[in-house]
Amino acid sequence: MEAQGSSADSSMDHLITSSNPEHPANHICTLCRNFYTLGWVTGTGGGVSIRDGAHIFIAPSGVQKELMQPGNMFVMEYATKTYLRKPPVLKPSACTPLFLAAFDRGAGSCIHTHSQWAVLVTLLVEKDAVTQGKAVLDACFEIEQIEQIKGIPKGRGKDGMLGYYDRLIVPIIENTAHEEDLTQSLETAMERYPDTYAVLVRRHGVLRLGRQCAKGEDTGRESGLYLPFSCGDEKP
Amino acid sequence: MEAQGSSADSSMDHLITSSNPEHPANHICTLCRNFYTLGWVTGTGGGVSIRDGAHIFIAPSGVQKELMQPGNMFVMEYATKTYLRKPPVLKPSACTPLFLAAFDRGAGSCIHTHSQWAVLVTLLVEKDAVTQGKAVLDACFEIEQIEQIKGIPKGRGKDGMLGYYDRLIVPIIENTAHEEDLTQSLETAMERYPDTYAVLVRRHGVLRLGRQCAKGEDTGRESGLYLPFSCGDEKP
Amino acid sequence: MEAQGSSADSSMDHLITSSNPEHPANHICTLCRNFYTLGWVTGTGGGVSIRDGAHIFIAPSGVQKELMQPGNMFVMEYATKTYLRKPPVLKPSACTPLFLAAFDRGAGSCIHTHSQWAVLVTLLVEKDAVTQGKAVLDACFEIEQIEQIKGIPKGRGKDGMLGYYDRLIVPIIENTAHEEDLTQSLETAMERYPDTYAVLVRRHGVLRLGRQCAKGEDTGRESGLYLPFSCGDEKP
Amino acid sequence: MEAQGSSADSSMDHLITSSNPEHPANHICTLCRNFYTLGWVTGTGGGVSIRDGAHIFIAPSGVQKELMQPGNMFVMEYATKTYLRKPPVLKPSACTPLFLAAFDRGAGSCIHTHSQWAVLVTLLVEKDAVTQGKAVLDACFEIEQIEQIKGIPKGRGKDGMLGYYDRLIVPIIENTAHEEDLTQSLETAMERYPDTYAVLVRRHGVLRLGRQCAKGEDTGRESGLYLPFSCGDEKP
Repeated sequence: MEAQGSSADSSMDHLITSSNPEHPANHICTLCRNFYTLGWVTGTGGGVSIRDGAHIFIAPSGVQKELMQPGNMFVMEYATKTYLRKPPVLKPSACTPLFLAAFDRGAGSCIHTHSQWAVLVTLLVEKDAVTQGKAVLDACFEIEQIEQIKGIPKGRGKDGMLGYYDRLIVPIIENTAHEEDLTQSLETAMERYPDTYAVLVRRHGVLRLGRQCAKGEDTGRESGLYLPFSCGDEKP
Repeated sequence: MEAQGSSADSSMDHLITSSNPEHPANHICTLCRNFYTLGWVTGTGGGVSIRDGAHIFIAPSGVQKELMQPGNMFVMEYATKTYLRKPPVLKPSACTPLFLAAFDRGAGSCIHTHSQWAVLVTLLVEKDAVTQGKAVLDACFEIEQIEQIKGIPKGRGKDGMLGYYDRLIVPIIENTAHEEDLTQSLETAMERYPDTYAVLVRRHGVLRLGRQCAKGEDTGRESGLYLPFSCGDEKP
Repeated sequence: MEAQGSSADSSMDHLITSSNPEHPANHICTLCRNFYTLGWVTGTGGGVSIRDGAHIFIAPSGVQKELMQPGNMFVMEYATKTYLRKPPVLKPSACTPLFLAAFDRGAGSCIHTHSQWAVLVTLLVEKDAVTQGKAVLDACFEIEQIEQIKGIPKGRGKDGMLGYYDRLIVPIIENTAHEEDLTQSLETAMERYPDTYAVLVRRHGVLRLGRQCAKGEDTGRESGLYLPFSCGDEKP
Repeated sequence: MEAQGSSADSSMDHLITSSNPEHPANHICTLCRNFYTLGWVTGTGGGVSIRDGAHIFIAPSGVQKELMQPGNMFVMEYATKTYLRKPPVLKPSACTPLFLAAFDRGAGSCIHTHSQWAVLVTLLVEKDAVTQGKAVLDACFEIEQIEQIKGIPKGRGKDGMLGYYDRLIVPIIENTAHEEDLTQSLETAMERYPDTYAVLVRRHGVLRLGRQCAKGEDTGRESGLYLPFSCGDEKP
C-alpha cells in the first residue's frame, strides 16, 4: 500500500479535478460537510471512501471533515492496492483496510462515522443483552415494522429493498484499540451476515456499505442510508 | 395515469420554468430543502405535491429531497389524471394515489414525510392504548390546551383555525407493505374525520393536507403545519 | 390604532429602507430567520417588535418568520399609537397590545415565541405544583446557581446583570383563547414582578422584553436573552 | 494589562488583517460562528483565545459570538501582558486571566463555552456523587471504553492520543460569582491533573485547552476537541 513515485506528483491531480459535483473527489467533500451538519462526524473523526471503477477515492486522516477539499483525496488503484495519488503532508485513513474489506465484498462505497446515535444503539443493545442474561458478543441490533427500513437494500447481490414486514438485522462487532484491527471481525461479520449493509462497532460507531453502481449519481443516494432512523433511501 | 406522448418532450418545460420562487415547481424544491434541514425527510423518503388549479405538481421518487430541482417535477393534468410532463429517467412518486385521494377531498397540497416525531407519536399512542387495554386500531392522537394547535384550520370547508380550547384529533391508520396500498384506509380516515388536516401512519410517518388557496403564496404557509409541535400557522 | 391615510402609501417606505443591517426593519428579519433556524418559531407563529425612539417596528401577522422582508414591517408612531406605515394585504400582529404594554413599562424591544422549550418549562412547573399540592396559578419558573442567568439584567431600571447566586424568577400567566386577551394578565405580571425581563405563558410560549438602548446595536444583543438556557447576554 | 498608547490606534490593524482564513483573527471568527450553530455559545457568552507565537488573540466581551469580526479582536503581547491592540468601545474578555493561566502551562489556544451539555455533565456528576454519598467537590467526569476519547491527547507535553482502554478524567471546579475568580481553582486543577485538556466548571460550562502548534492550521483541529461526545480529533 506504499505510494508510487507519483505520490507528491501534481501530475495526478487530474484524478481529483472535475467540475462535475458528482465526481467522487467532489462528492466526498459534499458528503463530509453534510455529515458534519447532521452531527454524524466531529473534528477529524470518521472516514469516507468511494470506488469508481478501477480507482478508490479515500478521504485523508486528520482533516476536519467539514473543511475537506478535493485536493485532500487519496486515490488508490484497486487492482494493485497502490496509491496513484498521495497528497503531501496528509496521512492515509486508518480506515483504509476496512474500506478494502468492504470493496472486496462488492461494496461501491463505504462510510464510517462515530455517530453518537450509532454508539447509543450499541449501548442499548448491550444493556438489553445484560438485562436478559444473553451474551453481549452475539447481540445484533434488530428492528422490524418500521417504514424506515424500506430504505435499506435486501442484501448484497439481491434486488430490491427490505419490506415493512422484513426484519433488519445489523451485526455489532467489538471495538479494538486500533481502528485497522477491526478488519478481521468486520470481515467475519460480513461473511456471517452476507446481506447486511451496515456493521455497528460497539462503543465506537458504524460502517455503512454502499452498493456498486453503474451511475456515479447513485453513490450519493446510497450514502443517505444511515442507521438508526436516518436511513432514507426508500422510493415512496 | 400513463404519460402522454409529451412525456420526454422538453416542450412541456414551460410548466416548471418560472423565476417566481412561489411557483409550485420552485416552491416544492425550497420546501424539500427546508424539510431536510429540519430532519423531517432523509434520503429520498417522503413526497410533496401541490395542486395549482388544473395542474398537479409532484416531486419524483428516488431523488434526494435536499437536491431536488424544478426539472425533476412531474406535472399531471388533474381532470384527466394524465401526466403532461414526465422527466426522463425518473419514476413517479408512489405517493401519487395518496395525493390524488387528498386532492379529491379538496386539499390544495399534500406533504408526506417519514418524520421521526410522527413515528414516535404513533408509538406513544400505541403504547398508551395497550397500557389502558384499549384497541390500538381505533386510537387517535389527541391534544388540547396547547397554543400550537391554533395553527391548524378548523376543518376542510370550515372557516378559521382551531381554538386553544378545541381538541385536535388526528387519526392514525395502519401501515401497509406498499405505500400506494394506504390509499383506501387514508380515504376512510378522511371520510370518518372530515375535519382533519393530517393523517398519521403507524410506524411510518404522516400525511399533511394543505388547503386550496386562491393565492399561490398560501401553499407555503400551509406547508408549515406539521405535527407534533411543529404546527405554526397561527396568526398572532 | 387605525392606519392613517398613508397606509398604502409607498411614501413611508423610507421608514423601513436602510442599508444598515442594524436598522430595526432589517434587524427584525435577521432575528426571525435566526429564531427559525434555532427552532424557536415555526410557520407564522410568534412576533417581534423593536422600539426605535418615537417609532415602533412590528413584524406582521401571517408571514412565515424565516421569509420576512423589511417591506413587511408595520411602523407605528408610539406617542399616538397610529400606524405610519401599513403594508397592503398584511394584517398587524395580534401581539401588538402585548408589545405596547411592554413598551409602556420601559422595554425597548419585545419578542414573543411559541418556543417548545418555553412550553415545556410551563408544563414542568405545572406538574411540580400539582405533585407538591401547590396552586398552579401562582407557580413561577425559578432557577439559581446556573451561570446562564448572568445573561439576564437585574431588573428594569436597575443596573447590571443577575449574579450566579441570585435567583431568577419568571412569572407564568394563564393562556387565553385569543392572544390579545393576554394583555391584562401580562400587565399584572409585569407590575407584580417589576424586575422580570420575561413572562411565560402556560402551554403557549414566552414574552421576552429587551431593554431600551441608546444604541440600536444593543437591541440585537438583548434579543439573545431567551429562556430557558438560551439566555446568553453575559459579558465573560 | 492596561492598554498602551496604541490602543485606539489603527496602526495596529495589520495585526488582525490577513486574507489567510487560518490567521488567528479570522479563525476565531469562523470558530465562533461554528460554535453558535452547534449550540455551544449563545448570545455573547463564552470566549476564545489563540496564542500565535509572541501574540495572543482574544475575542472581546459583549459581542454576539456569531457576528464576531476580525476588527473586534484584542491582541496582547504575551511576554509583557500588554495589549498591542484594543478595539475602541469594546471591553476585554473577563476570561483573559483564565486564558493566560492556560497559556502559562503550555496551551496554544483556549476556548470557554457555556455549553448546555457541559453544564449537564456537571449536574449528572453532582447527582451521582450525592447518591453515592461521595464528596461533590472532588468528583470528576470520568469515561472509558468509548471511541470518542481517542480524539483527546494523552496529556500536556506527552505524545499521542488517549487509547480506547485509557480512562479520561476531567476535573470539575466550583463556580464563582465572577468569571475571573475561577483563575486560582483552574490553576489548581491544571496542576493536580497535569494531563487534562479540559476543565469543567460546575453549573457553568467548560474550558478547553488546545495544544501549541508549530503550524497555525492545527489550532483549528484542536478546537474540535469538545466534551462530551463532541471530541473528534482522532485520526482514523
